[in-house]
Amino acid sequence: MSEEIENIQFELTDELISQVERLIEARDNKALQKLLKDFHHADIAEILDELDLDEAIYIIKLLDSETTADILMELDEDNREKVLRNLSSKEIADEIGELDTDDAADIISELPEDRKREVISHIEDKEHQAEIEELLAYHEDTAGGLMAKELVKVYETWTVAGCLRRIRGQAKEVTRVHSIYVVDKKNKLVGRLSLKDLIVAKSDQKIAEISNSSVDSVNVHDDAEDVARIMQKYDLEAIPVVDDNQILLGRITIDDIVDVMKEEAEKDYQLAAGITADVEADDSIWELTKARLPWLLIGMFGGIGAASIINGFSDAMLKFPALLMFIPLIQATAGNVGVQSSAIVVQGLANDSIDGNVLSRLFKEFLLGLVNGLAIACIVLLISHFVFQTTYLESLTICVALISVIIMAALIGTFIPIFLDKRGIDAAVATGPFITTSNDVFGILMYFLIAKLILGF
Amino acid sequence: MSEEIENIQFELTDELISQVERLIEARDNKALQKLLKDFHHADIAEILDELDLDEAIYIIKLLDSETTADILMELDEDNREKVLRNLSSKEIADEIGELDTDDAADIISELPEDRKREVISHIEDKEHQAEIEELLAYHEDTAGGLMAKELVKVYETWTVAGCLRRIRGQAKEVTRVHSIYVVDKKNKLVGRLSLKDLIVAKSDQKIAEISNSSVDSVNVHDDAEDVARIMQKYDLEAIPVVDDNQILLGRITIDDIVDVMKEEAEKDYQLAAGITADVEADDSIWELTKARLPWLLIGMFGGIGAASIINGFSDAMLKFPALLMFIPLIQATAGNVGVQSSAIVVQGLANDSIDGNVLSRLFKEFLLGLVNGLAIACIVLLISHFVFQTTYLESLTICVALISVIIMAALIGTFIPIFLDKRGIDAAVATGPFITTSNDVFGILMYFLIAKLILGF
Repeated sequence: MSEEIENIQFELTDELISQVERLIEARDNKALQKLLKDFHHADIAEILDELDLDEAIYIIKLLDSETTADILMELDEDNREKVLRNLSSKEIADEIGELDTDDAADIISELPEDRKREVISHIEDKEHQAEIEELLAYHEDTAGGLMAKELVKVYETWTVAGCLRRIRGQAKEVTRVHSIYVVDKKNKLVGRLSLKDLIVAKSDQKIAEISNSSVDSVNVHDDAEDVARIMQKYDLEAIPVVDDNQILLGRITIDDIVDVMKEEAEKDYQLAAGITADVEADDSIWELTKARLPWLLIGMFGGIGAASIINGFSDAMLKFPALLMFIPLIQATAGNVGVQSSAIVVQGLANDSIDGNVLSRLFKEFLLGLVNGLAIACIVLLISHFVFQTTYLESLTICVALISVIIMAALIGTFIPIFLDKRGIDAAVATGPFITTSNDVFGILMYFLIAKLILGF
Repeated sequence: MSEEIENIQFELTDELISQVERLIEARDNKALQKLLKDFHHADIAEILDELDLDEAIYIIKLLDSETTADILMELDEDNREKVLRNLSSKEIADEIGELDTDDAADIISELPEDRKREVISHIEDKEHQAEIEELLAYHEDTAGGLMAKELVKVYETWTVAGCLRRIRGQAKEVTRVHSIYVVDKKNKLVGRLSLKDLIVAKSDQKIAEISNSSVDSVNVHDDAEDVARIMQKYDLEAIPVVDDNQILLGRITIDDIVDVMKEEAEKDYQLAAGITADVEADDSIWELTKARLPWLLIGMFGGIGAASIINGFSDAMLKFPALLMFIPLIQATAGNVGVQSSAIVVQGLANDSIDGNVLSRLFKEFLLGLVNGLAIACIVLLISHFVFQTTYLESLTICVALISVIIMAALIGTFIPIFLDKRGIDAAVATGPFITTSNDVFGILMYFLIAKLILGF
């Protein structure tokens, strides 16, 4: 027995993929089944993601639907879409019959409208079908969109022994029993039990006696990100979902929340990098362009704005050419400071760790900008004077401009995300190129205005 | 009973905080205990994070150590450190006695060296003490640093009935029973059971008959981020940790992994924004400066580099002043493209979704850069010609430079993270200011070289 135990160490090698490809080409179904039998469905999905569509579909059709349903769930979304397009509605319905209601609803919701109805009509288990239809009615970004109907439910009037007997039936359909939910006769959620409580209790005790009545729940219309935050904060592994009348509708488990968290983190990261849609390195050039070009255009208009400002000061430029050299420095510094400030605020907002007072936060950023600005200005002063031999007034201009621009960038980078958040807009959009572009333009304008003041052109 | 059920809706209001402060000032312990009794420890921690240190310590000393131990775990790291500094070693040891071994070890490892030994020596439960000391020996970024010693373990030779009887004892000490681990007489991990399996089984069956021998495990020295990736990929809620001889040492649960994932995402986000240390909006100006100044200095040297380049072309500048206007545009575009490209690669590397071939990836980025570059160059061509009235050759220079710079930035943004990753360096450091700065300098150099070629100065 102990030989079968091993640390997880699946590695997707080129040899493995070509072995699978050779077996598919040779139509050697027996060898294929034998090879894939020992792999976890998540690993098989990784293999399929590397194969051609025809080959992937060949394997999906070869393996039994219990395995392939799980594989489908783990495939790249793009690949899953392609595979599903090549399966009949009946075949998809068979796969879906093997999945929990939440996964089943996720897959169906990815299908085109007309196929949705067809696939649903082919689901054989009528109860499963009705539950999936119920879930499809909720928005995907709500608790209802995340929850599964599979749960273990007992009535408060049952005894421990009767309860153990009856949940043996329910539990077989539930992959993981996190909690047993206690309901009254109207299906209102009134408490919670763990399997452990049940095992530790005496068999003639009533459920109402041993259940924990302070059970946390979320409303079916609550925002998915809020549910994620709650489960994380309170270290919950599952949470029941109720309607406005506290009727138990379903439960959300931590693995779904892990996915929500990951998507959220990736989205914020991409927004900060100026990528608007959810893209991956392997997407097509067209998809990548659609996601990337919008921010590049905004950056471009910023650049044109900066060009207009420089153009407006063209006489001064020719009188003080040294000033021009430092435009890139001013611009880069303004951009970097703005991104730093906004990232800290955006993260603080996401963690709810930023408390109300905007003015004190702006004052802190002002001080921070002053400290950083003084440090950088000192170094630039020395370099500009000794290396570029700027005049006394030119050096002064550059240093005053640097400090001012750093403070301005820190204030803008702090203020805009807080402002957006108060207006109910996701502050994450205000990072990256957005902050950089506005700071570029304001920074250069400020630079020339300070130069005008000091050098008097 | 049903009145006690409510959706989670704790809100940290100013009124609540001042109410707590008033009660502390009045030394009204009864009212304080009554008020806080109904709050979850994570909520009390949020309240404490808002109070002055004296007030927070007052509450910690007031409440019983079962609650305060959990509160301590949820406090902001900085605040926890301050609170612990104001508790005696004996008091800390009492708190730690209430915590699971993994949390206990985390808290002790935050203490200064001399206090560590003192606190450990005060832990009353000698077994708990020994287990915590064992955990302290592992590096915090490894499976050993994440695992807890609390788990439910049964021998393969036991019967289901005997097993149920015996695990009643073990399970009381384990907050959540995810899996029951089956070991042989040498404590080697040989299988896994769920409580559900046990309840569903017949009472005279042997454990070896019903246990699942294909149990996943990780080695105690495995990297924490790898463990997170594995648990997420295979949707595991707990994983056993073994040593090199497959001896069962502990288990890691999904809530610890959620924390690892969150920290990792925040770190990557901050790196992309040019913040080097793990800071929060509420940290001191000195800490924030330490985290932010390094990248600003790198950006500054980039700006100085750009200044040298412009200085080197100063004659050309005076002959073609129109060129100067577009320096900010070239620089901003190079920066934005570089950040976009690197973010996609870094995310792909983190998800293991980027496969080997560097050349084909670079070729794709080349095409992508060409498409984006042509789109932007067309618009700039029109604007520069009609708005800024640049000459034919100047317009050509600007457009050719824009396209070239975009392609170059895309290639650099793609190549550097892949290169670092192959060298075993975390690719996330190569985003944000690093890419922006190098693209600034190379972009401006390329601009002038192309201008020289086309305009022939």
